[in-house]
Amino acid sequence: MGAMINHDQDRDLRPFFAPRALAIVGATRKPGFGYILPVMLREQGWADRTYLVNPRGGELHGYQVLPSVAQLPDAVDLAIVMVGAERAPAALEEIGARGIRRVIVESAGFAETGEAGRLLQARMREVVRRYGLLAIGPNCVGVISPKERFSTVEVVPESLTPGPLGIIAQSGAFGNVLLDGLHQRGLYISKAVTLGNRMDVDESEVLEYFHADPDTRVIMMYLEGAADGRRLLATLKKVCADKPVLVLKSGRTETGRAATASHTGSLSGRDELYDAAFAQSGAIRAETLEELLCLARVFTTQPLPRGPRLGIITSSGSLGALAADVAVRHGLVLPPPSPELAAAIAKDAPAWMNVKNPLDVGPSSLYASSLPAMLQAPGYDLVLAVAIIPYSVVRQFQPLGLTPKVWFGDIVKAHADAPDKPLALAVVGANEFVADMARVSGPTVPVFTSPEACAKSLAGLWRYRRWRQSLGED
Amino acid sequence: MGAMINHDQDRDLRPFFAPRALAIVGATRKPGFGYILPVMLREQGWADRTYLVNPRGGELHGYQVLPSVAQLPDAVDLAIVMVGAERAPAALEEIGARGIRRVIVESAGFAETGEAGRLLQARMREVVRRYGLLAIGPNCVGVISPKERFSTVEVVPESLTPGPLGIIAQSGAFGNVLLDGLHQRGLYISKAVTLGNRMDVDESEVLEYFHADPDTRVIMMYLEGAADGRRLLATLKKVCADKPVLVLKSGRTETGRAATASHTGSLSGRDELYDAAFAQSGAIRAETLEELLCLARVFTTQPLPRGPRLGIITSSGSLGALAADVAVRHGLVLPPPSPELAAAIAKDAPAWMNVKNPLDVGPSSLYASSLPAMLQAPGYDLVLAVAIIPYSVVRQFQPLGLTPKVWFGDIVKAHADAPDKPLALAVVGANEFVADMARVSGPTVPVFTSPEACAKSLAGLWRYRRWRQSLGED
Repeated sequence: MGAMINHDQDRDLRPFFAPRALAIVGATRKPGFGYILPVMLREQGWADRTYLVNPRGGELHGYQVLPSVAQLPDAVDLAIVMVGAERAPAALEEIGARGIRRVIVESAGFAETGEAGRLLQARMREVVRRYGLLAIGPNCVGVISPKERFSTVEVVPESLTPGPLGIIAQSGAFGNVLLDGLHQRGLYISKAVTLGNRMDVDESEVLEYFHADPDTRVIMMYLEGAADGRRLLATLKKVCADKPVLVLKSGRTETGRAATASHTGSLSGRDELYDAAFAQSGAIRAETLEELLCLARVFTTQPLPRGPRLGIITSSGSLGALAADVAVRHGLVLPPPSPELAAAIAKDAPAWMNVKNPLDVGPSSLYASSLPAMLQAPGYDLVLAVAIIPYSVVRQFQPLGLTPKVWFGDIVKAHADAPDKPLALAVVGANEFVADMARVSGPTVPVFTSPEACAKSLAGLWRYRRWRQSLGED
Repeated sequence: MGAMINHDQDRDLRPFFAPRALAIVGATRKPGFGYILPVMLREQGWADRTYLVNPRGGELHGYQVLPSVAQLPDAVDLAIVMVGAERAPAALEEIGARGIRRVIVESAGFAETGEAGRLLQARMREVVRRYGLLAIGPNCVGVISPKERFSTVEVVPESLTPGPLGIIAQSGAFGNVLLDGLHQRGLYISKAVTLGNRMDVDESEVLEYFHADPDTRVIMMYLEGAADGRRLLATLKKVCADKPVLVLKSGRTETGRAATASHTGSLSGRDELYDAAFAQSGAIRAETLEELLCLARVFTTQPLPRGPRLGIITSSGSLGALAADVAVRHGLVLPPPSPELAAAIAKDAPAWMNVKNPLDVGPSSLYASSLPAMLQAPGYDLVLAVAIIPYSVVRQFQPLGLTPKVWFGDIVKAHADAPDKPLALAVVGANEFVADMARVSGPTVPVFTSPEACAKSLAGLWRYRRWRQSLGED
């Protein structure tokens, strides 16, 4: 208790994601932040490792509330701070004095609000330095750690299915609301961290951690501004040599920068500098939130392509053309089918069919045989499949056994037989048809409802692979 | 029967959408195109006005099949041609000789396939000219006319709910598959035309028709290339002065252009020329299919704004910043709240809240009062509302009566009280939450799942209004 702190102690982030026990400092009976959290921790099996602190003591959600931090047991190695901003520096002082080294400050009202808040944040930072604390926040919602079924923020249980995606975000919305929809898109996370105002732990430190984390294969980052631009660039260079980093950065315009300043107190800096930094380091910048999620879907499910040669197969000429435009604009090439492939396809093709790339099979029955042929063809490194049929036709023929799986073939098997080639589907039409196709494609072949997003996402895979090749990789 | 044709006869397109009676020439018992159509026409109430022609005669789907076009009754004023490409010129000859002036050639195998097909198409065109026919196609799926519950292509009945959106497309996919999903996005059409290879009727002629059509308020166009660039530019200028025209054009790259050439035989031309033409004429160009649909949603549901001043209200700082960036990049401005509005909001605001624009109300209860205040404020011409809460919170509080409608207020009423201001919502998170919010917002306030798409769509409204103002409109 109150042991001397070794300031040179390592900055291991692991206990943030798997604490021995944790304390919620400022647990309250008023509905709002921190109200649901103790309930949720109980549901997730953390009740015996969760302690609540509030000067009023008493009982809350079936937990005994301790009146002070000093009374917390030794097992507590993580404190979640939810007290009002003015009370926060004192709370950190007590946490430091109690020998708890890791703290997440969820309270808001600091640098993002103006001068008074900046001073409060500086006082907290001084406490953090003095005790050698590792602090996430303030103005954040902390961490999510599905493997441990541990989360410092209210999330639906479905979000706690472990997966390969590590998330770094400044904003709370990326720690809960965004997550609500991720599992519905086939995205499952290894860990997520929301950084808020970053008085101590910043994105570079978490990047380093995810770099070493065996559960994280792909990193997704939402940034309002770099805490330390030079360090971020150096860290990205190191991390991107091994793991892809997908970045969405706001504050592209003066107005957007002003918005981020009042959100997490971030100084965004000139957008062109970020563009250059991301390009130099191998990070893949998404232009929109939607694009970030699309990139995450192909990066978590598909292998990296060996080259830029994209084959497009489509049952709609127009959607094939839209995908082709975007693919080419983003660095892929569309070579025509080899004579062997062309001959194999033309053998069964109707007279009106052009055996080209995009391969427009129209409403023919060639899809089921042409997709595997294209995936097997040595002339293509990636395949994009636009798979549509009118829903009225689906309704008529489904009862007769002509299901989407019969129509488009066994897509899962076709991909499994060519496991080194990225494959993605673009499906447009009735929601029910899109859902059908997602079922048919399973978790290993992502389905996009936009041909352009599908093409751009696949192009992102090649862009990253090319970066790795430029570093000397085979 | 076989009356002399007056070549100067008007080119009224209306009977394409409301024929007195129609004939399907080349009706077949083989599954494929034209197999389901007679069944569907019966379901839509057209059985007594539908005639099938096939030299074999007999009976099909409960219709008596006539062996020749010559036997068709006088009431038939529209013929749908589905015979093989080689047979098509002769079929048109028979149709012309029978005095039927309007024809839709759905058959493929013409200019899109190469030299032999080009010759066949030229022969058809000669017949069309000689008889003074009005011909849509070949290589298309014809028309959809919800008001008459009439369609020459297989669509689901849900697509036949009339609405304000007129669709012009070269591609068949835009005539059926795309439509399958439109009603699920709140998009309902007045008429749709797929033009295919455009041997006669082209996009300019349909634009003129939609310009005059009282049921069409907004026009959406998918183009692979202009049939006649000069005419298209002149027509767009005329039409855009009264009705918005939203355009998606493929063939942006050499590869994409090659794809469109083999799809509808279109010569796309340099993309920059199209950009310039659309900008000069007031047409709004969408960059992607998704963007086209987003634009259609705001244009069909929202008024045009009086100016570019956007107010953003958000429960998430990051998503507000992302929307702000895109809004500003696309021509909107984000002035701060007026002193009156700021005072009204600050009155009830917690200390940490920045009364700015974007107005980030965070997890406070201010949303329900601030959104109407922003909509009423004379300083804003449009409002974008980012409305998110963690779904875990929704699940906890919904049973207690704290529904999204309580949380975010009566959005429908707020908009109805400011009917001259465009309003759109950006909602991110669990699919169920997005669906809840779409229900709460009703058909008059579009909900987008991307803050950037929401902002860009609203910017499209202002861009079009500014164009109209440049023509001298108030």
